[in-house]
Amino acid sequence: MTLIENFTKPYGLVDKIDAFGYLDSLKNNPDAPRKQGKVVLVTADTPLKASRGEGKTTTTIALIDALNERGIDAAAVLRQPSMGITAAGSKGGASGGGKASLTHPELIDWGLCGEMGSIEAAQNLLVSFAEKAIDDGLLDTVLVPRVSEVPSRSLRQITVDRGKGNVPERVVLTPTCELMQIVVLSRSMEEIADRVAHMIAGTKDGKPVTFGEFIDLWRITNILTDAVKPAKTETVNGSPVYVHGGPFANVSIGIPTLVSVEMACALHDVVIVEAGYGADAGAQKWLDIACREYGAQWPSAAVVVTRATTWRDDPALQWRYPFHVDRLEKLGIPTFPLINLWEGEDDQIPALRETAEELGFRDPIVGNLFRDGGEALAPQLDAFVEAVSDEALPERPKSFKGESLREKIEFVCGNAYGVPADRVIDKAGFAESEAEAERLCADAGIDFADLALVAVKSPATMTDNDAAPADERTVTLKKVEVHSGAGLVQVNLTTSLTTPMPKIV
Amino acid sequence: MTLIENFTKPYGLVDKIDAFGYLDSLKNNPDAPRKQGKVVLVTADTPLKASRGEGKTTTTIALIDALNERGIDAAAVLRQPSMGITAAGSKGGASGGGKASLTHPELIDWGLCGEMGSIEAAQNLLVSFAEKAIDDGLLDTVLVPRVSEVPSRSLRQITVDRGKGNVPERVVLTPTCELMQIVVLSRSMEEIADRVAHMIAGTKDGKPVTFGEFIDLWRITNILTDAVKPAKTETVNGSPVYVHGGPFANVSIGIPTLVSVEMACALHDVVIVEAGYGADAGAQKWLDIACREYGAQWPSAAVVVTRATTWRDDPALQWRYPFHVDRLEKLGIPTFPLINLWEGEDDQIPALRETAEELGFRDPIVGNLFRDGGEALAPQLDAFVEAVSDEALPERPKSFKGESLREKIEFVCGNAYGVPADRVIDKAGFAESEAEAERLCADAGIDFADLALVAVKSPATMTDNDAAPADERTVTLKKVEVHSGAGLVQVNLTTSLTTPMPKIV
Repeated sequence: MTLIENFTKPYGLVDKIDAFGYLDSLKNNPDAPRKQGKVVLVTADTPLKASRGEGKTTTTIALIDALNERGIDAAAVLRQPSMGITAAGSKGGASGGGKASLTHPELIDWGLCGEMGSIEAAQNLLVSFAEKAIDDGLLDTVLVPRVSEVPSRSLRQITVDRGKGNVPERVVLTPTCELMQIVVLSRSMEEIADRVAHMIAGTKDGKPVTFGEFIDLWRITNILTDAVKPAKTETVNGSPVYVHGGPFANVSIGIPTLVSVEMACALHDVVIVEAGYGADAGAQKWLDIACREYGAQWPSAAVVVTRATTWRDDPALQWRYPFHVDRLEKLGIPTFPLINLWEGEDDQIPALRETAEELGFRDPIVGNLFRDGGEALAPQLDAFVEAVSDEALPERPKSFKGESLREKIEFVCGNAYGVPADRVIDKAGFAESEAEAERLCADAGIDFADLALVAVKSPATMTDNDAAPADERTVTLKKVEVHSGAGLVQVNLTTSLTTPMPKIV
Repeated sequence: MTLIENFTKPYGLVDKIDAFGYLDSLKNNPDAPRKQGKVVLVTADTPLKASRGEGKTTTTIALIDALNERGIDAAAVLRQPSMGITAAGSKGGASGGGKASLTHPELIDWGLCGEMGSIEAAQNLLVSFAEKAIDDGLLDTVLVPRVSEVPSRSLRQITVDRGKGNVPERVVLTPTCELMQIVVLSRSMEEIADRVAHMIAGTKDGKPVTFGEFIDLWRITNILTDAVKPAKTETVNGSPVYVHGGPFANVSIGIPTLVSVEMACALHDVVIVEAGYGADAGAQKWLDIACREYGAQWPSAAVVVTRATTWRDDPALQWRYPFHVDRLEKLGIPTFPLINLWEGEDDQIPALRETAEELGFRDPIVGNLFRDGGEALAPQLDAFVEAVSDEALPERPKSFKGESLREKIEFVCGNAYGVPADRVIDKAGFAESEAEAERLCADAGIDFADLALVAVKSPATMTDNDAAPADERTVTLKKVEVHSGAGLVQVNLTTSLTTPMPKIV
């Protein structure tokens, strides 16, 4: 009854799994066999720019191939790449490369089974219902943005109902919307419906109105029937890979769905969770949002990927890589530096190892993973395997629920960006934006202090100027936006632009 | 090698079929077994309003169940309902009902396998590339509209790039866009790429620029990989049903994909093609566009569905049903009236048969198909079965290629709407709109006279006032729009509104 096969159906060249049903069945059958897989984060140095990955997916694929080669049952959980961005050419796919590849990368890169399209339709339908609520006199202002999977510079700022209402609006990328966050964080369709009901649709005479007050929730959940099911594919070496949930941890949570990771942990001994862009984005969000606030598993180990060039070629930014490695170690997570070499860089290995030793790192894992795949890693994984072989699951650190937004921001800035509280600066208007967010929540009966913080920033920076000396780095707070359905409060920070709707490059 | 199973893969609860591959394989293996199925159109009376169907899908399902019960290998080809419209509640699903149902109507109604979402992403990506072409100085005006699967009244007219370019734009429903037309009409991915290349992206200094001049066509075709594959499902009685292509024959072509029908004809003896809304929309387009211009099979029979109430309760509109039946008969298509009864209408059968006889119809087929399904039809199908049992395939009437737009319009108005040439009226601006369309084509090297006419109108009317006396009915011509990639020229006609982007009701 609890066999995963009963919850799995082929969809063309991939499988899709009813993870909600499988996990429910495990819960209702406590004696049914299951594993207690360990979560390992694969994250990276802060990239120099969004379009230049360090090789997290390539590493993740090589790593599970190497672990399986060593006889360890390991799987990976990846986020679904944004097809719009891939198709537009502004970013490569996100499905590995070379010997560290998936069997059908084209499926993953080009829209998978329509999951993103369904979430797009559902979020846009919410906006349509909000418009109808305006016609019906239930709302006078809509607060949910429309979404598009395809980037388009001119959609950043639009006016709808031109010639009549002339309403200014914005359009955000589908993977970053509140409905995607809800799909990522929810453990049942009922939870999704409940969270959609608690989304603030807009206001009437200044008072918040939630979707639960005026829509049929089944219209939204029906659209999501297949989108909530993780896809299963495999590496060219046959290691299992699950794909579910949207990217962009800089402007949203950008982590795989919680159920995809929990399902993988019930099926495998080691589960690699990819968390990017850098450790300041995806890893910070996995740890501080998924683990602390939503019951996800604290990682038993972390791998921080960098290219030799990213780490060392810009002296003003060299501090970032060791900062990330140290930070994760200080959280009690055994953290393994991994240097993903490019062609022609093999001769740098001795120098890289020396630098790592000077910095007090664990022995770095070094290899050209595109060229050599998992074979390059397998012999270097003794310490890593030991770290994840501990019987006990790690303890989950405390939640920040109940703390003020300021306290949450200061924790992230201090812990993840290295900027102390006295250098966290309010931009003009930030206090008003926060006060308005608090008031909206209070009026909607939502405990503002219960919301988890989502830092919204550029993928390539953690502070207002990462190239400044350590004691001069600041973080500027710009704007607050409540995603009450997802249980999140988003804060735009640092002076860099986030370009939530990029132009095609 | 040519077995359909080799081209079929399960996608959850439906199958998807590589129709391009299968038909190609039949072409390359002339001795491979195949059938020469006959096409039958199921169309309907002009509905009183868009949201009130006559029961075409219910009839189609009951009809194939009845034929299969009689030992005839019959299948249906349906268009994929617009999930956005279904979800929004402005229209019921389009997957039958009661005893004339599909096994999984929820799949068909709620987004199938993401086909519509893929086409939406691809068409919107074309707009994004056109924006980039503006940045690159290749274009100064974009002519392709954005699309949304979800209706939204305020998207009818929008301004993008607010605060900078302030460009007025419109958004149309995904099923009606040129890329959907291209998918419906194409017989290979190469043809799709070639047609996308010939779409007019916009203008530079007034001269047309096609997408082939500046985009990588693989970016669009990669998105469409799965969207070009028809889905296969079945009725609750096990009759095969293929679903492929978008609806809305009033504002677009609104017919199933040509390859889905051709594939079904190679596999079954009778293939029911659903063509709505009314005979003036879907049937007109199947006959005059698909058959005459794109090589589709001329129907061996037609069934024209009406409700007893639609036909008879509005005296001023009573002329429409017999007009449609007569018109199809005059085209040489054996045409069977079918009256789809609702609960409590059984006692009207004698009166309905009497009226049909007075009108010189073939014996009407009458039944409550929701309540009784195919069983209600099977005993009434002798004449129908005889009509489709003729050995020879019907001849296809002549193409209108090379005729002027005016001649094409006059043919449709006279033949399909009953309005002679002298009552086809140009609205102010129509001549300029036509001249501009002709000029665009000439400048782009496209033969304007080769384009097939698509009438764009309300689903509920054929003329400016259907309730006027026959000799006073007029058709007003409003606007011309070229879809050169699809090989179509769209003409908005009649004074009724088309609401291409409906509001939620």
